[in-house]
Amino acid sequence: MAQIPSPVSRRSLLKLIGTVAGSAVMYDTMLAMGYAAQSDFSGPVKLSGDIKGASVLVLGAGIAGMTSAYELRKAGYKVQVLEYNNRPGGRNWSLYGGDTYTELGGATQQVKFDKGLYFNPGPWRIPFHHQGLLHYCRQLNVPLEVFTQSNDNAYVHSTSAFDGKPQRIGAVAADVDGYVAELLAKANSQSKLDGALTGDEKDALLQILRSWGALDKNYEYKKSDAGSARRGFDVYPGGGLSPRQVPSEPLPMQQLFKSGLWRAARSGGSPLFQPVGGMGVIGKTFGKALDGLIKYNCKVINIHQDDKGVTVTYIDSRKGGAPQTARADWCVCTIPATILGQIPMNIGAPMRNAIFSLSYTASVKVGLQFKRRFWEDDEQIYGGISHTDLPISTIGYPSTGYMKGGAGVLLGAYVVGKDVNSFGLETLPATEMVKVAVDQGSRIHPQYRQEFQNGVAVAWHRVPWTLGCAAEWTEENRAKNYDNICALDGRIVLAGEHCSFITGWQEGSVLSALDSIKRLHKRVVSA
Amino acid sequence: MAQIPSPVSRRSLLKLIGTVAGSAVMYDTMLAMGYAAQSDFSGPVKLSGDIKGASVLVLGAGIAGMTSAYELRKAGYKVQVLEYNNRPGGRNWSLYGGDTYTELGGATQQVKFDKGLYFNPGPWRIPFHHQGLLHYCRQLNVPLEVFTQSNDNAYVHSTSAFDGKPQRIGAVAADVDGYVAELLAKANSQSKLDGALTGDEKDALLQILRSWGALDKNYEYKKSDAGSARRGFDVYPGGGLSPRQVPSEPLPMQQLFKSGLWRAARSGGSPLFQPVGGMGVIGKTFGKALDGLIKYNCKVINIHQDDKGVTVTYIDSRKGGAPQTARADWCVCTIPATILGQIPMNIGAPMRNAIFSLSYTASVKVGLQFKRRFWEDDEQIYGGISHTDLPISTIGYPSTGYMKGGAGVLLGAYVVGKDVNSFGLETLPATEMVKVAVDQGSRIHPQYRQEFQNGVAVAWHRVPWTLGCAAEWTEENRAKNYDNICALDGRIVLAGEHCSFITGWQEGSVLSALDSIKRLHKRVVSA
Repeated sequence: MAQIPSPVSRRSLLKLIGTVAGSAVMYDTMLAMGYAAQSDFSGPVKLSGDIKGASVLVLGAGIAGMTSAYELRKAGYKVQVLEYNNRPGGRNWSLYGGDTYTELGGATQQVKFDKGLYFNPGPWRIPFHHQGLLHYCRQLNVPLEVFTQSNDNAYVHSTSAFDGKPQRIGAVAADVDGYVAELLAKANSQSKLDGALTGDEKDALLQILRSWGALDKNYEYKKSDAGSARRGFDVYPGGGLSPRQVPSEPLPMQQLFKSGLWRAARSGGSPLFQPVGGMGVIGKTFGKALDGLIKYNCKVINIHQDDKGVTVTYIDSRKGGAPQTARADWCVCTIPATILGQIPMNIGAPMRNAIFSLSYTASVKVGLQFKRRFWEDDEQIYGGISHTDLPISTIGYPSTGYMKGGAGVLLGAYVVGKDVNSFGLETLPATEMVKVAVDQGSRIHPQYRQEFQNGVAVAWHRVPWTLGCAAEWTEENRAKNYDNICALDGRIVLAGEHCSFITGWQEGSVLSALDSIKRLHKRVVSA
Repeated sequence: MAQIPSPVSRRSLLKLIGTVAGSAVMYDTMLAMGYAAQSDFSGPVKLSGDIKGASVLVLGAGIAGMTSAYELRKAGYKVQVLEYNNRPGGRNWSLYGGDTYTELGGATQQVKFDKGLYFNPGPWRIPFHHQGLLHYCRQLNVPLEVFTQSNDNAYVHSTSAFDGKPQRIGAVAADVDGYVAELLAKANSQSKLDGALTGDEKDALLQILRSWGALDKNYEYKKSDAGSARRGFDVYPGGGLSPRQVPSEPLPMQQLFKSGLWRAARSGGSPLFQPVGGMGVIGKTFGKALDGLIKYNCKVINIHQDDKGVTVTYIDSRKGGAPQTARADWCVCTIPATILGQIPMNIGAPMRNAIFSLSYTASVKVGLQFKRRFWEDDEQIYGGISHTDLPISTIGYPSTGYMKGGAGVLLGAYVVGKDVNSFGLETLPATEMVKVAVDQGSRIHPQYRQEFQNGVAVAWHRVPWTLGCAAEWTEENRAKNYDNICALDGRIVLAGEHCSFITGWQEGSVLSALDSIKRLHKRVVSA
């Protein structure tokens, strides 16, 4: 979910990526997301003025729906929320032992994790600059802990480079820095940058390069203590009369440049957070704060507006039964476009076309429980992400319960967009996806075979209430349809990550909701 | 404390640093420490064999002394520990509201922090690879949390660059990457790297550079969405119909290269930890685990060995009174060399010369309490470090209690080595150091003036029981004296960070202790 940057940046990134050969692509996509997620949240919303006793029907109790309901209620509106699932949160969702999940087609998975362990099928991290979502975490007293994203001790792995042996990210980063610095120093000292730089600048650049790349006095990147202090030693420094430190040999430049692993050299250094106990804690806590407002298990089948209000028809999504109706003066609809396009609704062509124009990214996540946290015990990986060119793409290590021993759940596959096809998901049932994840992951962590206990897989295109992971806007479509999907249509306004520039992130849902209810409120008080 | 890398790496780094002009020096030193702290810990120590009822006297209940006592007791030795302070931990030490600290000369500070807030005058972070110390944290059930070191949203600040305006680390890093990539791409495309690279490699390099530096299609680093996704936007992407994103302008290349701020472009991406509640929790918990073994307030005044054992004479360091003695078969002495050199002890010339050869680094840390955590509320800095060329050098933001509001304590100055002189410490009393820290820090955070409440300053050269921060080995001295300071002299063996290659870190104390007691034990069982 959260790896999909906002479309304009994504477009730029994809352009860059498009020219890069082979396996480099995925590292780029994976690592780029650290940058493309900033938010313009500028403080709590203030909805003042006479609302004349107005009522609002909110469709969907995900982050956008609950943000809307929370603020509208505070401003004095009569608020009802209809939700398809039997729980609040929407894509904000954690799976715990004892939970079940039924996908499109009816296949049901029983989650068998030990007590205290969880897996986030949807969003799993909150960048520090997502101040909108963090504002609601504070409001709701959701306890947060640090999410470790960058970990130099995790791996980058390419089946076609370095004999398929995973490389520590920090070593690759140090070597790329070193070689790039060496090459530039060479060009610089051979007066080949004369046109670009003055003499002073050239001197300053040389100093930068030497220190930054850990170059030797000849401005060359070679096996050294300084380099090994970054990339790791063969024998580490110790105490007393234990063996003396031995520096390590850099990866060969030619192989490194061709490997596609280089992209790991630039990863973000900004704090991220996660709720203690799983991302779903936000949804649950939000739901409690709105107790009595949300009606669960409501499958919306018709949305009809007239001059005076909006009538929504729904049925109990679990039991079926006779259709019921709810009515209010206004409607904030946060149902994903994939589902909304299937629901009869009397809106104008601009909003309708916008809804139909939007496709959703596919995404698969697999959570795997192992008997012991071998990634910590054996490999000293505490949180962070390993990247591979195998179809599983990503292994994410838990950012909680460090060094406590016992069983652990890691993210055993995280595949987004086109890569989903290469994972063979069109045909694989969930149990098979888990097997594939274990199989492929064991090439990076051989301990998988011995330690695996159970797993769960969520393919977002088969999640009945979203039929996809997140909205995908092309720049062309954005220019044509974005304003139309956001604009009020009579008494109906849409909200959700699909109505934002931060698609695929909860922050987009929050900001979209705030923007939509501000415009709705303005209409109400000025009416 | 912890910023002093092991000497070999440090030497290499200092060589690099020595050639870099002006303010760049300090950023380099500051940031380099992230690399130079790796450990060769290889698992719990096993002391097996017949110890024949032997007894050991451990001098000092710091990390080295307590590690020694803990393992020796486990192996069956009769263990006593003598400690100068009235608490365990040594340099592992946190100050809380209500504590007092009296420095050399008698000046006493009352710590006035609010409940729940603390300041670590000594070590403040545990790199993930310090597996020796982490092993004891696990053994002792010390709860750990993530220490945030790298934070792109913290600042680098130079009084002489960019009109003295602090720059976000992430923006500087992005711009350095961008310009360096652009320059190298230029050299590359002008066939100026022909000697160094084949055609294939040149193509691969160009792709690396474009993506890594966020270059445009002409391989130039300019204002762009891709660049702003790294360095920050002028207007961030938002939701609904809020204003569209606006990219930001990179810093001018010439100014940037000359500024000395560039070194911030490379900061470590590996997890670090801290004990929940302050670093001193380790010392306290260790002390409890050794309950009954440690005698506090013992100032050692003589160490005398004979054929059969070691006799140590001490007085109550608070009350004075008649000297007392303790005796054991063997002695593990962890007293810092600065103090040990003043204590009569019958050892051979090699160990004696080694002790006298060793000088200790000066260091100052200042803890400041503010009414509110403005660095979070106003500036979105959650943990991490800002660097400045002002004498305070460092501002460290707390890695705990994020977003909880209320008062907070930050590290308002952290000065090491020669920089201590530039801070004017020879003459300044602690209260003045606090004032200086507030004064200088307000140039980075103007909120200081309004929000400051109280502070405490610890200058390690005036700490009565260490007279310095950490041992400083030159490579020459290491070659001459290191083996001699580590070797058993009769029935006495030394231990501590000064007897390790990881000086200035607690890990050095642990590894030194383990190495020393292993050698001592070998002597005992083979006697």
